[in-house]
Amino acid sequence: MPNFAKYFPILSWGREYNKAALTNDLVAALIVTIMLIPQSLAYALLAGLPPEAGLYASILPIMFYAVLGTSRTLAVGPVAVVSLMTAAAIGQVAEAGTAGYAIAALTLAGMSGAMLLVMGIFRLGFLANFLSHPVIAGFITASGVLIAASQLKHVLGIDAQGHTLLELLGSIFTYLGDTNWITVVIGVLSVAFLFWVRKGLKPVLIALGLGPRMVDIFAKAGPVAAVIATTVVVWLFELDGAGVKVVGFVPQSLPPFTMPDLSLELMSALFMPAVLISVIGFVESISVAQTLAAKKRQRIDPNQELIGLGAANIAAAFTGGYPVTGGFSRSVVNFDAGAQTPAAGAYTAVGLAIAALFLTPLIYFLPKATLAATIIVAVLSLVDFSILRKTWAYSKADFAAVASTILITLLLGVELGVTTGVALSILIHLYKSSRPHIAVVGRIEGTEHFRNVNRHHVETNPEILTLRVDESLYFANARFLEDTVYDMVAKCPKLRHVILLCSAVNEIDYSALESLEAINERLAASDVKLHLSEVKGPVMDSLETGHFLKNMSGQVFLSQHLAIKHLHS
Amino acid sequence: MPNFAKYFPILSWGREYNKAALTNDLVAALIVTIMLIPQSLAYALLAGLPPEAGLYASILPIMFYAVLGTSRTLAVGPVAVVSLMTAAAIGQVAEAGTAGYAIAALTLAGMSGAMLLVMGIFRLGFLANFLSHPVIAGFITASGVLIAASQLKHVLGIDAQGHTLLELLGSIFTYLGDTNWITVVIGVLSVAFLFWVRKGLKPVLIALGLGPRMVDIFAKAGPVAAVIATTVVVWLFELDGAGVKVVGFVPQSLPPFTMPDLSLELMSALFMPAVLISVIGFVESISVAQTLAAKKRQRIDPNQELIGLGAANIAAAFTGGYPVTGGFSRSVVNFDAGAQTPAAGAYTAVGLAIAALFLTPLIYFLPKATLAATIIVAVLSLVDFSILRKTWAYSKADFAAVASTILITLLLGVELGVTTGVALSILIHLYKSSRPHIAVVGRIEGTEHFRNVNRHHVETNPEILTLRVDESLYFANARFLEDTVYDMVAKCPKLRHVILLCSAVNEIDYSALESLEAINERLAASDVKLHLSEVKGPVMDSLETGHFLKNMSGQVFLSQHLAIKHLHS
Repeated sequence: MPNFAKYFPILSWGREYNKAALTNDLVAALIVTIMLIPQSLAYALLAGLPPEAGLYASILPIMFYAVLGTSRTLAVGPVAVVSLMTAAAIGQVAEAGTAGYAIAALTLAGMSGAMLLVMGIFRLGFLANFLSHPVIAGFITASGVLIAASQLKHVLGIDAQGHTLLELLGSIFTYLGDTNWITVVIGVLSVAFLFWVRKGLKPVLIALGLGPRMVDIFAKAGPVAAVIATTVVVWLFELDGAGVKVVGFVPQSLPPFTMPDLSLELMSALFMPAVLISVIGFVESISVAQTLAAKKRQRIDPNQELIGLGAANIAAAFTGGYPVTGGFSRSVVNFDAGAQTPAAGAYTAVGLAIAALFLTPLIYFLPKATLAATIIVAVLSLVDFSILRKTWAYSKADFAAVASTILITLLLGVELGVTTGVALSILIHLYKSSRPHIAVVGRIEGTEHFRNVNRHHVETNPEILTLRVDESLYFANARFLEDTVYDMVAKCPKLRHVILLCSAVNEIDYSALESLEAINERLAASDVKLHLSEVKGPVMDSLETGHFLKNMSGQVFLSQHLAIKHLHS
Repeated sequence: MPNFAKYFPILSWGREYNKAALTNDLVAALIVTIMLIPQSLAYALLAGLPPEAGLYASILPIMFYAVLGTSRTLAVGPVAVVSLMTAAAIGQVAEAGTAGYAIAALTLAGMSGAMLLVMGIFRLGFLANFLSHPVIAGFITASGVLIAASQLKHVLGIDAQGHTLLELLGSIFTYLGDTNWITVVIGVLSVAFLFWVRKGLKPVLIALGLGPRMVDIFAKAGPVAAVIATTVVVWLFELDGAGVKVVGFVPQSLPPFTMPDLSLELMSALFMPAVLISVIGFVESISVAQTLAAKKRQRIDPNQELIGLGAANIAAAFTGGYPVTGGFSRSVVNFDAGAQTPAAGAYTAVGLAIAALFLTPLIYFLPKATLAATIIVAVLSLVDFSILRKTWAYSKADFAAVASTILITLLLGVELGVTTGVALSILIHLYKSSRPHIAVVGRIEGTEHFRNVNRHHVETNPEILTLRVDESLYFANARFLEDTVYDMVAKCPKLRHVILLCSAVNEIDYSALESLEAINERLAASDVKLHLSEVKGPVMDSLETGHFLKNMSGQVFLSQHLAIKHLHS
């Protein structure tokens, strides 16, 4: 059953599982669990959901991915950008904090899971390639800024709303008078502490003589330390009575069985958000998985990944979670901590289940400001505006796509931002290929090489015009080709032959074929013959199926050199 | 003032206007007017509007186009496909026959006019190129079938509704019992007569010794003859009392001054339809204009055409009309009748104004079945399913786009049909370029030519792998390139050099640049050097602005021959 293992990757790595792998996976799971407890709570807060939803979304989804996913080290669960997109999507159909809001989150996870599954089954993983790298980088950066801004209210201890930067800042400004200064102290100290743990702690620990692995574990435990310290302080000094908002009562429970609302009305309202969350989640996940796999020379199957992530999201929908995907920071920690197989994920799930069952009473006094601080510090590492500088230097078109994505994400929200980015990068590509570079070429004296007359010193002949078309010919540039040929021909009164040098033409679609027919006819009317040279194999194969070659006034030459030799004589 | 004439083409042709042109234009205007009277009434009926709307839409819009358009012979007014699209669009916001329906038609014309104007001012005429020829052909064919089906009810004398083929046929079937047999006789005889005029009349007239121009005029007057004959018959035998539906009272008036409803609600409901009508109308118009201009070696400026058509539609909005564009049949008649300048259009407008003012009482008894017959005969000439066979033979991808466009137009309506066609042709193009042909090449012994190892007998070297990438490198294929290179490299254990032969690479965008960097790094880790050869001028210019070339492990060679010579030694 070779194919069976393809669809259940657990069958291949599970057969070779041994004690060494078990030890490594257990250690990694312990470290990831410690890191994930505060992170899961925080991301649930970001999504506008009760904190336990973050834990639940990290338990069964991980299990399903462990069975179906192809990455050995990807850690699946709530992530920052998808949490923000979830908040934006369900904020439009329900009030945050209501039961309807939580149920809409389940529906969103279920729909997104179903879409990912379908894409995987129909092997549509390639669709993720239609997102340009700089557009994704810009989107992640803008989302990071939005997420950090959305958490400011928790650090200030005020109420504020909004899904765009201006709404958020305006709302914060409106309620600024309500600022709770004790909350601010807790929040600001937490942020400062977490930044110091990231940047300043390592040298200290190394100086103390700790091994690099222990140093890493301590650094990752920073958020846990902040959580414990601030919780104890609030509890000791009863700061919740002084207006410091705390997480409060969290049920002690394994993930509950939940039913998403599958009404047509809700599903059609959430359709586009679910598409965007699926695509963005998949792209984030597959990039992390491929980066980590490359380091160990392992392979990722994008279509099987879709199935794994789809199953994980459906699991989230039925166990009180919300949309999940493979997260960058949690996967890197898992990888660095030495995880060898997806079993590490399963052990992490067990760890989180224990936390959900026994530890939740301990976080009653955990200040929301501390969770907000962990989010802010985590997402600011995603923010990297250098993509603007890099694309500006390399290509103004790419820059335009990135800059629009960032601006629209910040000012009009995540959904419009990413949609614009994708549409714009496709349009820019079409626009560029719709006005291809068409060079007049001539022979470099004494050689068989033909080059652009404007860049090289070459021989030409007033009776022969050779045009090198630097683009595949298809509907978007068919008319442009016609116009250009007519314009150039009009400038050459002695002309008897036009040769289209096709070394860079990788495709001729039906629209372009019609344009070639029109060019052939129009040139023939002025007694000018049309020839082709250096036509590629696949293009020649398709041209031979049409009538064009039979009606063409000239010939097809294997090389430009042969064409000139023949027409010259 | 050279630029002034560019924006007002009338200034250039008006200066050379003489008596010969005047005579020719007057004759053409007379012929076109005779043809347009029944056609305008009929298309208004197709759009669900009162018949006079068709006349009004042909008067001021023609005048405006005459001043601003660049085509000498294009005839602007109601056309079949746009009338059908108008009916589909405003049928969603108002009941046919109500005042709101007519006002929505004005709004649609105004919005479409404004969009065309804006596109013209921002020089976005190239956007029309993003429609593939076969998709348009398929759309026109499917629309022709839909239009013919929508007119069947008038021939049968029954009530029927619907904007898709199944709705229309289902509705006709439901009301089939109400068939008025006198109407059927009038309708079927009219259709038969009109077909005979098209196919059978010419030989008879030629046999009678008439000149070819007179023959043409008689043939075009067929619909007028049918209109007169059936009107007289209905009047004489009082058939309107026997259930034959007639045009009825049409006001005697010049085009009235009307105000479109510019409420946000209506405008947002009509936004997408207005976009589609603008684009489809523009594409139809520009193809006709370019075809006719090419015959007389005249030039059309697509952006100025947008301005001319935009002004015409805005004129239609304020004078009781509905969306208009340059029509195929009316323009061909105008051209064949010898029109020399847009003044012919202005004279036609005068002719139609006279008709609107004096002739409308004469059409009280004109049966709707006759008008339906003229529409059916006219649109069936648009129907040409051979595009399916042609694209099937040439390219399955083009076939898929056409077949989907036709099916969806017929089954789900015009708007979804054309949207799907456009989206699909773009997606197919992206898909094809996302999996480019990548060939391993070797040298044809004793030459400087390098060809695909699978198609030619060539020399290769186990230490050097040369890949020719037959596509521009951009976000949609960047990841595919990485995967392919890694796969091929994994198969060559002795490898020391990889050369990317870039003769067909016309662009490298930022995403592809990042992939090249990743390939370079990964190959370097296995001690394999990456080289480029035959990089095009514009691509080299942009590569030089980035850091990639500095970090590249190998070199850039002007030609593949130099690369092999250098690496071999």
